[in-house]
Amino acid sequence: MCAGDDTTCPHYELHYRQFKEALDQERRSFMKSAFAAAGGAAAWGGGVSLVTPGMARAAAAQMPAKRSYHHLPATADTVHWGYFSKKLKPQVEIDSGDFITIETLTHHAADDLERMVKGDPGAESVYLWTKDKKGVNRRGAGPEDASLFGRGAGEGLGVHICTGPVFVRGAEPGDVLEVRIVDVAPRPCANPKFSGKAFGSNAAAWWGFHYKDLITEPKPREVITIYEVDATGTRNWAQAVYNFQWTPQTDPFGVVHKTIDYPGVPVDHATVKENHGILKGVRIPIRPHFGVIGLAPKEADIVDSIPPSYTGGNIDNWRIGKGATMYYPVAVEGALLSAGDPHASQGDSEMCGTAIECSLTGTFQLILHKKADLAGTPLEQLDYPMLETQNEWLVHGFSFANYLTELGPKAQSEIYSKSSVDLALRDAFRKMRHFLMTTKKLTEDEAISLITVGCDFGITQVVDGNWGVHAVIRKDIFAGVTA
Amino acid sequence: MCAGDDTTCPHYELHYRQFKEALDQERRSFMKSAFAAAGGAAAWGGGVSLVTPGMARAAAAQMPAKRSYHHLPATADTVHWGYFSKKLKPQVEIDSGDFITIETLTHHAADDLERMVKGDPGAESVYLWTKDKKGVNRRGAGPEDASLFGRGAGEGLGVHICTGPVFVRGAEPGDVLEVRIVDVAPRPCANPKFSGKAFGSNAAAWWGFHYKDLITEPKPREVITIYEVDATGTRNWAQAVYNFQWTPQTDPFGVVHKTIDYPGVPVDHATVKENHGILKGVRIPIRPHFGVIGLAPKEADIVDSIPPSYTGGNIDNWRIGKGATMYYPVAVEGALLSAGDPHASQGDSEMCGTAIECSLTGTFQLILHKKADLAGTPLEQLDYPMLETQNEWLVHGFSFANYLTELGPKAQSEIYSKSSVDLALRDAFRKMRHFLMTTKKLTEDEAISLITVGCDFGITQVVDGNWGVHAVIRKDIFAGVTA
Repeated sequence: MCAGDDTTCPHYELHYRQFKEALDQERRSFMKSAFAAAGGAAAWGGGVSLVTPGMARAAAAQMPAKRSYHHLPATADTVHWGYFSKKLKPQVEIDSGDFITIETLTHHAADDLERMVKGDPGAESVYLWTKDKKGVNRRGAGPEDASLFGRGAGEGLGVHICTGPVFVRGAEPGDVLEVRIVDVAPRPCANPKFSGKAFGSNAAAWWGFHYKDLITEPKPREVITIYEVDATGTRNWAQAVYNFQWTPQTDPFGVVHKTIDYPGVPVDHATVKENHGILKGVRIPIRPHFGVIGLAPKEADIVDSIPPSYTGGNIDNWRIGKGATMYYPVAVEGALLSAGDPHASQGDSEMCGTAIECSLTGTFQLILHKKADLAGTPLEQLDYPMLETQNEWLVHGFSFANYLTELGPKAQSEIYSKSSVDLALRDAFRKMRHFLMTTKKLTEDEAISLITVGCDFGITQVVDGNWGVHAVIRKDIFAGVTA
Repeated sequence: MCAGDDTTCPHYELHYRQFKEALDQERRSFMKSAFAAAGGAAAWGGGVSLVTPGMARAAAAQMPAKRSYHHLPATADTVHWGYFSKKLKPQVEIDSGDFITIETLTHHAADDLERMVKGDPGAESVYLWTKDKKGVNRRGAGPEDASLFGRGAGEGLGVHICTGPVFVRGAEPGDVLEVRIVDVAPRPCANPKFSGKAFGSNAAAWWGFHYKDLITEPKPREVITIYEVDATGTRNWAQAVYNFQWTPQTDPFGVVHKTIDYPGVPVDHATVKENHGILKGVRIPIRPHFGVIGLAPKEADIVDSIPPSYTGGNIDNWRIGKGATMYYPVAVEGALLSAGDPHASQGDSEMCGTAIECSLTGTFQLILHKKADLAGTPLEQLDYPMLETQNEWLVHGFSFANYLTELGPKAQSEIYSKSSVDLALRDAFRKMRHFLMTTKKLTEDEAISLITVGCDFGITQVVDGNWGVHAVIRKDIFAGVTA
């Protein structure tokens, strides 16, 4: 099942060429629709995109004549684990309008190395950990020497394996980066024993909303459930394979992890009891998406990957999948986009702390909208990550819209004790009001009434330090708007 | 547009007969499906309903041979305004399996009497208020003599016009009442000036989540937006007609209402400024539903209609509309069901305090499930209001699952200062876990993982004293369950 992304496939070259040709077709069709949009009505009454014809023209004028395609594999050299940083060396430089395929690896693959790492050179290079060496040493925004808690380099203060960053030429603070998710596919298991399958791990962990509220013994406990996802594309649901209770795990450096306090600790399956035959017949609808897509924030040199913020990051909204478009405010030169935390599925709330954490490969088109071209457009003043799907627009509220500036010098630790859904709802309300008052030119009273009778507020997640609420508004609400 | 429910229509008799004939057909089709269900597989692996074949048989065995149809109009004599009470005299007694059409009136009709009351005998009788007399004197659970705040009888501590109660013969505490919503239709405006239309009011009021967070002047303010709904059934969207800012209103008894502190105060339109041409072209998708359907609680003689609780009431979930089925635990003899707070539309959160409050008429079938028949069924131990739609099951979490017992003797006032979305999310999580562990026989670990990767949590409302979060699970998740 090589889709041109499996270098171990004997027909890799052929598959890769086929993939690129398919992409070229996709690209041409994209160009065609962009052209149609640009030739459409000058006034913006609602439409299918936040990008007005004028913005599309302005963005196109700044792209090179030919779109390029890039491929960024996930290896020990191309990932940063557990943090964002404006100081990171870009893995690739691309132009606005270019396409890029980014491989992403789940940071929960060590829960079952047999199913999620073995035989996969990229994953093996990242997860390499012997008594002498780690493929990726630093995991998290904590000190490199683990002087804080002794858990390991980076201290696990931040957990996601992020591939990137991608440097977008010409991107500057104040611009908006449009990220179109062209395709998302599970990363097939490379272990021949499980051919045609992909796997993910769901950890009911100590940071879950459920953890102090268990009713059966032993309490508390952390439980990992391994799910199987069909990598051949014929089934749109996942099913549980087995679960086990976390037991203290000794990592190759000799540190004992009583709880899931550091990412990528290999689970020794001789120490756990696998319960097979669980969730019998239960089919989890898959919603492949990226928990993390974000740009580097400007506020600090190294930023924990867990709390989402104004430049995106760990938003954990399952709607950020194939066909969706994200808009992010650019905070640093080159934008510095990274992707990670791939999920096969998640429900709104991510209750127990994680999704079905499952490696995915995504293909994206990145389009830069320069600050100078934003005046009077729907994206003027955008200072939060915005999601557009085929039929909806969504704003993402967080307990703290930009916790790095709001919570002072200790923001990165403070954020973990200050969040509530109420605060995130407040922020989502304010952002939707802002969206309607600016993008749709409504008065505050009009916006508030419309929000109340036409917007749905859902709980994105309550497990990422900075909790999230999203507000959804259907595009066809504006179907009658003519000017 | 008389659907057999407009006694002023010159063809009322004919229309009423046609309506009843249509209903009979509907009933026969219902019976057929119930029969099919009863003849289906004995084991319950998931299916389309929480009612197992065995439960259906047991319930059917206790119904009279023939289903009856009842009609409960909304008049000053058939409504109770602003409270539930186990002491209320039933308006009608029905048998399990019977159908009943219940007219419901919005308690916001006095925001525009011309459009929502004038010419409608039922509404006029309820809203009658001269210097000497009120059609319905008591409005709310407060003292009849208004000795608390002087706002009026009942003090507006509870606001919804509820039609009922309906006494279900044989219903006893511990039973479950299944309420099938067969049909919902807007109540057409009776003023010939607005023929073919229906109207609703959206009040952005002092109890709204937005109220202390306004950004434009004057602050604070209450704003009423009047919406027009198509009563002919050809358009599935509502549009705004005008809005106005609330000004102090003097009621016919001479009490001045500086804010919206008492329901049914007639707005003198000479004192307000109507802004027409607002929300131009904006189309609000209609989602006709009942904000309030509930049974009388046992805990107190008179209970404020605003906070929802274990017997339902003001849940304010827009999914409680046509085609939906609710299951309620019966708390008192006869169940004592009332319906009110009709909404043309609402978004999850009901942000500004109210929906598009619009009179509706509903047709229901009520089916009683006796406690003795519940052992081992999906509805055993049900102590919360549960919603079933065609494709989903939903549990309703509240900040306090049963605030009347949890918050002590002052529960009815305490509830207004103690709610949070976080608490409601906690309750929704617990109820969904309970549902999956009992109904689906999952272990706690299975339930928690499934909740995380397969359930969506949304914010039902943050304006009803006892705030709400609903958890949604798709029925097809269990499509592969065979036993």
